Amino acid sequence: MKAIEGLLKIDKELSVSVYLQVTNGIIAYIRQGTIKPGAVLPSSRMLAKALNIHRKTVVAAYDELNAQSWVDVYPRKGIFVAKNLPEVSPRSIAGIVPRNGIATKTFYQFSDKITTTHVFVRDAARNLVFNDGFPDTRIAPVELLVREYRRFGGYHFTPKYLMYGPEQGSESLRAELARFLYETRGVEASPQDILVTKGVQMAIYLVAQVLLSKGDTVIAADPGYPGANEVFEQAGAQMALVPADEYGIDLNAVETICKKKKVKLLYVIPHHHRPTTVTLSSERRMQLLELAMKYKFAIIEDDYDYDFHYSSSPILPLASADYYGSVIYVGSFCKTIAPGIRIGFAVAPQNLIIQLTRLRRTVDRQGEQLLEEAMANLLKNGDIGRHLKKANKIYHERRDVFCQLLTSRLGEHVSFKIPDGGFAVWMKYLHGINAAEVARKAAKMQLTVSNGSDYFYNSDNQSFVRLGFASLNMKELEQAVDILKKAVAEVR
Amino acid sequence: MKAIEGLLKIDKELSVSVYLQVTNGIIAYIRQGTIKPGAVLPSSRMLAKALNIHRKTVVAAYDELNAQSWVDVYPRKGIFVAKNLPEVSPRSIAGIVPRNGIATKTFYQFSDKITTTHVFVRDAARNLVFNDGFPDTRIAPVELLVREYRRFGGYHFTPKYLMYGPEQGSESLRAELARFLYETRGVEASPQDILVTKGVQMAIYLVAQVLLSKGDTVIAADPGYPGANEVFEQAGAQMALVPADEYGIDLNAVETICKKKKVKLLYVIPHHHRPTTVTLSSERRMQLLELAMKYKFAIIEDDYDYDFHYSSSPILPLASADYYGSVIYVGSFCKTIAPGIRIGFAVAPQNLIIQLTRLRRTVDRQGEQLLEEAMANLLKNGDIGRHLKKANKIYHERRDVFCQLLTSRLGEHVSFKIPDGGFAVWMKYLHGINAAEVARKAAKMQLTVSNGSDYFYNSDNQSFVRLGFASLNMKELEQAVDILKKAVAEVR
Repeated sequence: MKAIEGLLKIDKELSVSVYLQVTNGIIAYIRQGTIKPGAVLPSSRMLAKALNIHRKTVVAAYDELNAQSWVDVYPRKGIFVAKNLPEVSPRSIAGIVPRNGIATKTFYQFSDKITTTHVFVRDAARNLVFNDGFPDTRIAPVELLVREYRRFGGYHFTPKYLMYGPEQGSESLRAELARFLYETRGVEASPQDILVTKGVQMAIYLVAQVLLSKGDTVIAADPGYPGANEVFEQAGAQMALVPADEYGIDLNAVETICKKKKVKLLYVIPHHHRPTTVTLSSERRMQLLELAMKYKFAIIEDDYDYDFHYSSSPILPLASADYYGSVIYVGSFCKTIAPGIRIGFAVAPQNLIIQLTRLRRTVDRQGEQLLEEAMANLLKNGDIGRHLKKANKIYHERRDVFCQLLTSRLGEHVSFKIPDGGFAVWMKYLHGINAAEVARKAAKMQLTVSNGSDYFYNSDNQSFVRLGFASLNMKELEQAVDILKKAVAEVR
Repeated sequence: MKAIEGLLKIDKELSVSVYLQVTNGIIAYIRQGTIKPGAVLPSSRMLAKALNIHRKTVVAAYDELNAQSWVDVYPRKGIFVAKNLPEVSPRSIAGIVPRNGIATKTFYQFSDKITTTHVFVRDAARNLVFNDGFPDTRIAPVELLVREYRRFGGYHFTPKYLMYGPEQGSESLRAELARFLYETRGVEASPQDILVTKGVQMAIYLVAQVLLSKGDTVIAADPGYPGANEVFEQAGAQMALVPADEYGIDLNAVETICKKKKVKLLYVIPHHHRPTTVTLSSERRMQLLELAMKYKFAIIEDDYDYDFHYSSSPILPLASADYYGSVIYVGSFCKTIAPGIRIGFAVAPQNLIIQLTRLRRTVDRQGEQLLEEAMANLLKNGDIGRHLKKANKIYHERRDVFCQLLTSRLGEHVSFKIPDGGFAVWMKYLHGINAAEVARKAAKMQLTVSNGSDYFYNSDNQSFVRLGFASLNMKELEQAVDILKKAVAEVR
């Protein structure tokens, strides 16, 4: 055994007190097997001298070791490493004290169940970005949110929001949501029909975990939203994909599948299907509800984009005419405020909401109460409504300007349909222009744009891109389209 | 078909504009099958008169119906419900317009996979409560948190925290956590070894979902923490339960199980095992690591209570001596700040952290960025350290006073050991006193106390209770013990 005096190293600059450095250093050597059970420790006087620290510091360290049962103290004999500790063979570890690094790999095996991770185009710092269709955080009503947070610092604040709260979400937020959903889209839910979630993502996750078993069939559109498909597949489901045309998801294809096998769930984005931006027509909405009843499948209606429709009023959700409880209506405020503010909801019949709430409890217990109360206040005082009005006007203008720019500057190389709402345009490059090549050229000119992968489930078609325009202002849109034009010219 | 004029009802008090009430009312009747495809709608003049609204309002409603493709407009002939809509048999629905209530039950079937929900004793308004062991939200450093939120309202605020952020958690928070964990408990993790979660609950959930498959064996102590057992069982695991004595979990029982079958995971609470409050001894910590290596199982070390230890310094975690990557170290700030502020972490080898992060992404995409940045600042500027020092002093005093009160006023009817730390005392009623009966009597005197159920996995032993003392001040502790004394006297 090496002398402990030579092993321990003390760093008086650390915020860890010196006596704890001595304590933990000795514990580390005991645990590594360098200092064996039964070994005698140097006297406090000797160790203090060797480490150039006060003797009282060593005495405190030895007391701590004794309190934690690492050593046995025999008066007049000395201090010994506790004999009952297990023998450990010394491990080859670099001589840093304490050396307690996390291993780089687990000792045990586990299956890498989760292998795919869909990643949206991210905003790179200072670059122009056509993202996947996100709002402009520069017009996000953050000052309103901060105002609500401040309220909690004042006399209104009560500890009630700091203890464990309701798993289903703040009661005042659910009450406000019930009102908001009724007034904006005719969904007549009571607060107990609503579960507050962390964005649409968590709503889809919870529904998938509760509804799906291994081998269940889930219908979704292709091209579609991989972020949802991934969740269904993780829950063990088999995806059955159908096309989507200009009126939305193809219901003949849906019925063909239903005739062949039992379908458990259908996933649909009624407003501005991702990535193609089409709106599910009134007619298909009615037909889809009929199909759900005929073949007894559940529908996740992901209406994340309802609040941003420019051409007419948005079409009332399936959930507003769901007399038989087929529809699970999910949405969020991630587009209304900002993607980083994670508040969403699921509306469904109570027997399902109860199960979703129980699962949510085991997942993360509950949401952020301060944020939920802040959102409730913003809905109640009309701030959200006013912000939506203002934001819709801005995004509507940006859509018009962007589509004009695309037509006038890139018209001969691309085709697209003006979207009825939302934050993005679905565009096809013509003449065999490859999206990945355009993306590479554009990146060199400081424009981030999709490389066209990740839209189709089973295809490497790279002639389409989804161009999020909403987070760019007029000037930026013009710059971005100009760069895109140059990039396309270089590729041709 | 009934006349539409007689069906529609307009409420000018609603914040929904009148033209949308007309639009949505007609849509609701079409969807219900009350108004059939091909039916003619009344002229705008007639409908306006019948509803006592302006004719322009009806024209706007009809335009909206046309834009949403619910009607076909034939100039000089009239407006007809679109013929391509599917025929729907009228449904028997109360005559409210629009009547779009959520069904009370789903139309489809799903298995009630999640059946149990462990519920802690909740704080009832204005009552005295012995909860399960929670901090006092009245001393929670909320003003510090609000100060950090305010920072985001000032010039420092950048939209960067409002866009999608890193799924693994804020980079600055992970850097601060790495420092904090090293300085306070010798866990030498780098930021990439850390996943930020919503409290310990989410950390346990993610680990269970990634590691466990159906039929896997998980070891935990009984009595133990049902909130964890539930998660393991939901993931398909079989629980193998072992006793815990005054030194913590019984490792001989653990090894006996390991010899009989493959064990995948062991769950242990090293500081202040719930419910019994014992600390896992130094000796057993070393032995447990040896066992994990010998039998190749993973360990979840749930050190939720590390920061609150009164009798000595807390014992360094298993994770600080885990040279082979057996340990997944989980903890949170829910006890440091408040249960309602959901920030926790998991520390583990990188190959596991990568999988946990991917799963977390599908569950709820990411954490609350504003909260994560605020926590990072509080760790960085030392506020958390200072608060912990102050809070430890308060809770240490409350523990001492509470234990003295129990001994002096209830000593002949109960037995307990003074806990080394934490927020609760594990107490046994003597002489066959039944906890549920005491709880009923106490409730009548405005004291909430556990009824003794829910501690043991497979037993209805109701002679033990866990008494959370930390959220009561000295005066409240005295009142609460007095009521408990009276309740016990009534039961005897």
